[in-house]
Amino acid sequence: MTKKLLLISNSTNAGEAYLGWPQSFIKAFLEKHSVTEVLFIPYAGVSLGADLQSSYDNYEARVAGVFSALGVTLTSVHRCKEPLKAAMKAQCIAVGGGNTWHLVNELHRTGLMSVIRERAVSGMPYMGWSAGSNVACPTLMTTNDMPIIQPPSFNCMGLIPFQINPHYLDKNPEGHGGETREDRIREFLVINPGMKVAGLREACLLEVEGDTMLLKGAHQLRLFEAGKEPVEYPENSDLSQLLK
Amino acid sequence: MTKKLLLISNSTNAGEAYLGWPQSFIKAFLEKHSVTEVLFIPYAGVSLGADLQSSYDNYEARVAGVFSALGVTLTSVHRCKEPLKAAMKAQCIAVGGGNTWHLVNELHRTGLMSVIRERAVSGMPYMGWSAGSNVACPTLMTTNDMPIIQPPSFNCMGLIPFQINPHYLDKNPEGHGGETREDRIREFLVINPGMKVAGLREACLLEVEGDTMLLKGAHQLRLFEAGKEPVEYPENSDLSQLLK
Repeated sequence: MTKKLLLISNSTNAGEAYLGWPQSFIKAFLEKHSVTEVLFIPYAGVSLGADLQSSYDNYEARVAGVFSALGVTLTSVHRCKEPLKAAMKAQCIAVGGGNTWHLVNELHRTGLMSVIRERAVSGMPYMGWSAGSNVACPTLMTTNDMPIIQPPSFNCMGLIPFQINPHYLDKNPEGHGGETREDRIREFLVINPGMKVAGLREACLLEVEGDTMLLKGAHQLRLFEAGKEPVEYPENSDLSQLLK
Repeated sequence: MTKKLLLISNSTNAGEAYLGWPQSFIKAFLEKHSVTEVLFIPYAGVSLGADLQSSYDNYEARVAGVFSALGVTLTSVHRCKEPLKAAMKAQCIAVGGGNTWHLVNELHRTGLMSVIRERAVSGMPYMGWSAGSNVACPTLMTTNDMPIIQPPSFNCMGLIPFQINPHYLDKNPEGHGGETREDRIREFLVINPGMKVAGLREACLLEVEGDTMLLKGAHQLRLFEAGKEPVEYPENSDLSQLLK
């Protein structure tokens, strides 16, 4: 019944191989939990093909290639005749990035949101990157993505009690006058003052095992709370207190 | 019964005065339509004060200062005892930028969404910047903002038949691996293939008068449609065909 989560900010650093930087972390996570087969959730990937079906097919092929090199078989849920049954018996579930809104819509529509949640709470290893980390949070409200579809609810799995902002960015592009990411997170905290938001920079992840959570990867994490100055936690911090 | 819209990408260019660049366009719009009093909608401004009420107060003061210099009185709807009546008799309505989600939530909650829509369709001059331009579109789906609150609906006023993406940006910040704005708009078009999206760069606006729409400001506009390469329209283009 120990929760096992690998919540990754981003699949790919600019200019690097797909799922390149987190590969060693994924490998260690899968080995530690003796995972040989992964069920993949492709619903965030809407624009990898000429239509949704081929987008999911292409997404599966892309991710399966990476996992295959780690000796692990990966199958996408969009090809399962009974998606809920597949989720109920999966050894491990990996939720890919892309568009959080479409992912949330499909997870609610199919019923997978609650089934995956129950499995992850019961100890099934869960892995997500970008949108796949967003949906492990209480809501989708700290996504960066464009709301291309209206889901029935903004609620997500709540596998952790705080919000992640993946791909956290410190600055705007040169000369851009729009709100910074920090401005937007501050707006979120005005309306949702009881929440905490972890700004998870690219090339970083959070690994949860039971009551323990560690920050791994190349950068600090920036934590936001209402009415407080943001706090920076260094690489490899133990952030278990955020799980309380 | 001629529609009169001024749909502005952004209030402020980086490093410039608040509402600086669009000021001459706002002045000309107000003069052309003989506007002496403006009703302001502050609901997108959630983080300009210690709480929402003071945020609205501060937002009103900031915008009223700019309009006052143009010889126009501006009053915020949050101080009106009867907001719907105020909207029904307003000479002109200006909707400020900030967080589109909070704006849409409040417009639906108060009933202002449909009242302002009816007034603008009936010829009352309507002006918006950033989130204020988003809500003139059929839906909020091409906002860049963080979904800090779940509105009852994503539907907006539909004063124009296409979507605007304000603050349109061509590139990611150096070294950032997330989706570009263009990637996100392409995702939108996968799910909403019948729509068109105007990437409205900062320091640009669209001015609508009846069946005529002109692009004004410093940059080209990038138009996205499903299954087509994006098209660039030069500064000062007549884009009236997008209203059909």
